[in-house]
Amino acid sequence: MKYDKILLEHGGGGLLSHELVTGKFLPLFRNEWLERLEDGAVFEIGGTRFCLSTDSYVVQPLFFPGGDIGSLAVHGTVNDIAMCGGDPLFLCAGFILEEGFPMADLERIIRSMSEAADLSGVRIITGDTKVVARGSADGLFINTAGIGIIRYVHSISVASIREGDVVIVSGTIGDHAAAIMSIREGLGLETGLLSDSAPLGGLVKAILDASPHIHCMRDPTRGGLGAILAEIAQQSGLEIIIDERPIPVRDAVKGVCEILGLDPLFLANEGKLVVFCPEGEGGRVLTAMQNHAYGRDAAIIGKVQGHVTRGRLVVNTMIGGSREVDLPTGELVPRIC
Amino acid sequence: MKYDKILLEHGGGGLLSHELVTGKFLPLFRNEWLERLEDGAVFEIGGTRFCLSTDSYVVQPLFFPGGDIGSLAVHGTVNDIAMCGGDPLFLCAGFILEEGFPMADLERIIRSMSEAADLSGVRIITGDTKVVARGSADGLFINTAGIGIIRYVHSISVASIREGDVVIVSGTIGDHAAAIMSIREGLGLETGLLSDSAPLGGLVKAILDASPHIHCMRDPTRGGLGAILAEIAQQSGLEIIIDERPIPVRDAVKGVCEILGLDPLFLANEGKLVVFCPEGEGGRVLTAMQNHAYGRDAAIIGKVQGHVTRGRLVVNTMIGGSREVDLPTGELVPRIC
Repeated sequence: MKYDKILLEHGGGGLLSHELVTGKFLPLFRNEWLERLEDGAVFEIGGTRFCLSTDSYVVQPLFFPGGDIGSLAVHGTVNDIAMCGGDPLFLCAGFILEEGFPMADLERIIRSMSEAADLSGVRIITGDTKVVARGSADGLFINTAGIGIIRYVHSISVASIREGDVVIVSGTIGDHAAAIMSIREGLGLETGLLSDSAPLGGLVKAILDASPHIHCMRDPTRGGLGAILAEIAQQSGLEIIIDERPIPVRDAVKGVCEILGLDPLFLANEGKLVVFCPEGEGGRVLTAMQNHAYGRDAAIIGKVQGHVTRGRLVVNTMIGGSREVDLPTGELVPRIC
Repeated sequence: MKYDKILLEHGGGGLLSHELVTGKFLPLFRNEWLERLEDGAVFEIGGTRFCLSTDSYVVQPLFFPGGDIGSLAVHGTVNDIAMCGGDPLFLCAGFILEEGFPMADLERIIRSMSEAADLSGVRIITGDTKVVARGSADGLFINTAGIGIIRYVHSISVASIREGDVVIVSGTIGDHAAAIMSIREGLGLETGLLSDSAPLGGLVKAILDASPHIHCMRDPTRGGLGAILAEIAQQSGLEIIIDERPIPVRDAVKGVCEILGLDPLFLANEGKLVVFCPEGEGGRVLTAMQNHAYGRDAAIIGKVQGHVTRGRLVVNTMIGGSREVDLPTGELVPRIC
């Protein structure tokens, strides 16, 4: 790798994140589970399939419209488990606190985690707290890891995606990042934007009940829908074609993007998912999603064209052109989750 | 709770850590698993018992004699699982990196984690990387969480401790903290001290093979042997009496303690454990421990006297006196793990 120091972009969910994972972590930790590079790792014990997932949360500010670091830390890991088709059961939580952090804020965050856990149907059953001196951390970082049971027979994985699959997104994109950015830039109250942070286990259940044959699911967090689809295209060696027109984007998000020069396609979401399902089941899955509170604005946005020499994502733009979209190389919005 | 801000002592493994956990986390997250306040949480799925545990690592310096933050992050979580009688199987790892962190150091740490995982018989199967701006974290923090299977029938827990139990420590105490402190204070090379950081799964297996009836195991990390025994006494409502004389302490550790005014009883260990076992099995367990590489200096150091109005730890000192030992209130050695 060509970098001798860690850059912000190594944590951005784009090209440098990908290079760090595949260039450093994967070669040294290599094993059949990690190799799949999914949101969680799936393993089997005594005939039962489990999913294990982890994420650290460093979002700033800690409290934002529509959520806080506590609910985000629960939803984020619960969603990663749900993306593997798992029912999230148990979480553990690790806190790194900066000396001087207000106890009242900590209590508010713990309360928010507790409520999010209740809503998500998981229990936080063990944890750890570390404190570092003033200046050695920025307030509070939370790690959550979680375990779920996978009850579906079919493998929900990038490896399962096939030519002809339709691509469905569960709702408006960019809400989370736009809400955070509007607060940071002082646009907060005017836009009225809320983070979409939400637990997706129920929506996933609705999808799998409608079609247990879906091929792959992902929640487009860091790097947004664009990065996640570009990565899937790369991993699978498939050409994925999406249309910009049907992708739901709130007017307020468009507004923030115009002001700040951002593209909603690369903005983080914390309560959305994208599904790849067999062509014949697209309609049924779409209806099931639209009937769920967290999928009301779901839309079919593209399809899988087939195998190509080098997997790629092609976006048909609003104005009728088409462009190839790569993993983003810059860090659009740091500390978004 | 009487503090309105987080103090370093809230992460020290002593009284304030205990108050934070029982006063804030427990009431809001309350559930049957967390309530037990063990090193890991034990749950059952389909007739199989599992243990889930997590720890964040913030040790400074990142590289120290006898280990580094990478091996420590693997051993620490593996040991917490082993203390529940679990065979550690899978870990996940979350990295929080400061912008500008040297890539070569990261690579060295990943390599060390990989070697420690091989040695411990676990696989690191999923992970996460976040990067924060320069000044928002101190180099690198690692969280590991892990899952293990518990194959033993008897419950290994504070709740299982009985009057008459003998207390055995697996070897010299204070090595880890003394090694770190001697480096920080510039005494490093002279003392020749090494951290005892090691995976304890094999030693635990030897113990359980010798006596599947042992009652409780703990690894005395933050707060040391003194804090862990005081906490167990408090939790169980039992009086625990230990003798200072048989507790193994290296001369170099005694030396560092004299220079820095520390008590080995409260110094962190990262490759030691303390066992509570039925009186009649003490000899057998001790021999099994002494026959294992990580238990060669094991010694019987005390016994459980019985129920009292308020559980307490009594230490019979070298010079023939006795003192009651409470959870330490100050932070002896910050960022030790």
